[in-house]
Amino acid sequence: MAESFAAVQWNKGMLTLLDQRKLPQELIYLDYDSCHEVADAITNMVVRGAPAIGIAAAYAVVFAARHAYQEDIENWRKLIEPALQYLADARPTAVNLSWAIAEMRQAFDEITGDPEHYLLEQAKRIHQDDIAANQQMGRLGAELIQPNSHVLTHCNAGALATGGYGTALGVIRSAYQKGLIDHVYASETRPWMQGARLTSWELQQDAIPVSLVIDSAAATLMHSGTVQWLIVGSDRIAANGDAANKIGTYSHAVNAKHHGIKVMVVAPSSTVDMSLESGSQIPIEHRTASEITAIQQMPVAPKNMDAINPAFDVTPAELIDAIVTEKGVVNKPDTEKMRSVFH
Amino acid sequence: MAESFAAVQWNKGMLTLLDQRKLPQELIYLDYDSCHEVADAITNMVVRGAPAIGIAAAYAVVFAARHAYQEDIENWRKLIEPALQYLADARPTAVNLSWAIAEMRQAFDEITGDPEHYLLEQAKRIHQDDIAANQQMGRLGAELIQPNSHVLTHCNAGALATGGYGTALGVIRSAYQKGLIDHVYASETRPWMQGARLTSWELQQDAIPVSLVIDSAAATLMHSGTVQWLIVGSDRIAANGDAANKIGTYSHAVNAKHHGIKVMVVAPSSTVDMSLESGSQIPIEHRTASEITAIQQMPVAPKNMDAINPAFDVTPAELIDAIVTEKGVVNKPDTEKMRSVFH
Repeated sequence: MAESFAAVQWNKGMLTLLDQRKLPQELIYLDYDSCHEVADAITNMVVRGAPAIGIAAAYAVVFAARHAYQEDIENWRKLIEPALQYLADARPTAVNLSWAIAEMRQAFDEITGDPEHYLLEQAKRIHQDDIAANQQMGRLGAELIQPNSHVLTHCNAGALATGGYGTALGVIRSAYQKGLIDHVYASETRPWMQGARLTSWELQQDAIPVSLVIDSAAATLMHSGTVQWLIVGSDRIAANGDAANKIGTYSHAVNAKHHGIKVMVVAPSSTVDMSLESGSQIPIEHRTASEITAIQQMPVAPKNMDAINPAFDVTPAELIDAIVTEKGVVNKPDTEKMRSVFH
Repeated sequence: MAESFAAVQWNKGMLTLLDQRKLPQELIYLDYDSCHEVADAITNMVVRGAPAIGIAAAYAVVFAARHAYQEDIENWRKLIEPALQYLADARPTAVNLSWAIAEMRQAFDEITGDPEHYLLEQAKRIHQDDIAANQQMGRLGAELIQPNSHVLTHCNAGALATGGYGTALGVIRSAYQKGLIDHVYASETRPWMQGARLTSWELQQDAIPVSLVIDSAAATLMHSGTVQWLIVGSDRIAANGDAANKIGTYSHAVNAKHHGIKVMVVAPSSTVDMSLESGSQIPIEHRTASEITAIQQMPVAPKNMDAINPAFDVTPAELIDAIVTEKGVVNKPDTEKMRSVFH
C-alpha cells in the first residue's frame, strides 16, 4: 500500500511540503529553499507529526548549509549555527526535530568542500530510514492485534505525519491488510482536527473503513465494548516509557484503562529520548488561546476569554501496554525494559 | 445574583426564547405562539438544557390548548393530542420534556371553559418552581465545596439551561458568592460548544473567573492537581443514580475517578426518572453526522465521511459522589438512597 501523496518531498533542489492546514479540502504543495522558512512551516503546522518534522528539519539543514557555504566556504560550520538554532526552536515537544539536527550535524566534521551533496544524502537517508522503520513497526504492531479488531486512533500518526506509511496508521494499515482489523474510529482531535481532516482522509484513500467521533465520545465508544485497541503515535518517549503525544491521548488512555482496552504507542526510535528520566521532564508546547476561542476565524467564545491550550499531554508508562519501535516492542514499558532496547 | 438575560420568557401571550445557537456573538430573542414551532425550536436547539426544555414545553402546551380550544371548545382535550405528541418527540433524552407535558396534562380534567388562563398559570408555576429549585440546589451543593476550590464544568447547566440561576452553575454561583470557589474551568463541549459559547459567557457576565479548555485537555488539568470537583447538570437520572448528560461528561467522570476528583451532578427532581432502573434504559439521542463533519458550515472532514454522533452519555452512579436536587443531596447514590428521596 503506497500513498499517492507525500507530506515531505525533495524535488529538484527544493523541499516540497503538503500544506496540512488545508487538507482534506485542498491538496496544496508548497516549495521551500530556506531553513528559516521551513522552521516557520513547522511552527505554523504546514508540516506536523514528529517524524515528518524531523525529516523536514533534516532537509532544512541542507538549505542552511547551502546558504552558509555560499556566504563563506571556510566558515560555513560557524555561520550555520543561528539558522540551526532557529530551526531547533520551531516546536518544543517533538524530540525528532533536535534529533534530526544532531544527526545532520554529526556529518559536518567529515565534509570537505561544498557540504550540500553530502548533507542531502544524509537527509535522504534519514527520510528513507523513517519509511523503512514505519514498515517494520507496521509488521511488529500488527502481530499484537487479534482478528476482527476495532481500533481507535487519535490525531494523525499516518503517512502525513512521517516519511510515509505512518506509525500508528502504519500498524493499522498493516493489520488491515492482514485481515485483522474490521473498523477504525478516528477521534477528531481538537483544536486542529487532525483526526477529522487527516486520518479520516488517509484511511479513506486506502479504503479502510473509518468512522469519525468527537474526542469526548471515545469513552462511550469504549464503554460499548466495540474497541480492543487504542493505537497512537508519540512526539517524545522518556526513558521510563512515559509518552508525550497530541493533547487528548492521555484522556483516551485513562479511559482505555478503565474499560480494559489496550494501549499501543507506535514511534520510531528517533522519538525515544533516553536523556529524560520521565515524562514530567518533556517540554509541553502551549499554543495561543485563539486556537480554541475561534474556529475558522469565527469566534466561538466571548471576547477576552481566558483559555488554556496545551498542545500535548503525557501518557504514563503504566497506562501503556506496548511501545512499538522499529528496534522492537517494549511490552508494559519501564526503565529497565526501555534500556534493554534503547542504549 | 440575577441574570440580565432569560433563556425562556412569557411575554404578552407569546413565548420568547433567547436563540442559544447565536450566543455569545449575538443576543437574539425569538417569539413563538405555536406548539409546533416551539417543538422545532427545541429540536433545533434554539433552547436547550433539560430544565429549560421542560419550561418551554410547558408554555408550548398553552399554545396547543389555545389552538385546540379555538378549533372546538368541546373537544380541545382530544384535538390537542397530536401537538403534544409532536412536542414530546422533539428530543428524546431529557425527561423534563415529557415530565412537563405530564404536569400540564394533569390539569386538563379540572379545567372548565377556556383552558388558556389555567394552563398558563400552571406553566408559570413550573417556571417559578424551577428557579426556586435551582436556588435551593445552589445552597445545598455549595455546602459540599471546600474553600479555595477550583472546579470543572462541562456543557452549560446555567441560567441558559434552566428557568434561571442554573443547576451546576447555580452551585458554582452560590459557592463563588460564599467565597469557596477561586476558579472555574469550562470544557468547550463539542460539537455545539456550549462550554465555550454559553458557560464562558454566563460566568463572564457574573465576573466569575473562568478559563476555557478543550474537552480532551480536561484530563491534563485534572492531572495537574488544580481541580477538586467536576460539577455537571443532567438530562435524566435513573432510579439507581446513573445520570445521562451531554456527551463528554462520562469521559470527564472516568478521568475524575482516576485522579481522585469528586463528581457532583446537579438537577431538579423533574430530571429524576424513577421508572427506569438504570442508565442503560435512558434513550440516547443520536444527531446528524454533519454536526461533526462540518463546523460553521465549513467541512472539516473528507466527503462522505461516516461519523458517530451521540448527543449524550451516561455516567454510572458509582462514578458520582453526590446528586444534588432541591429535595436533598444523595451521596454515593444507589437505588435505595434514591428511593428514600424520590418516591
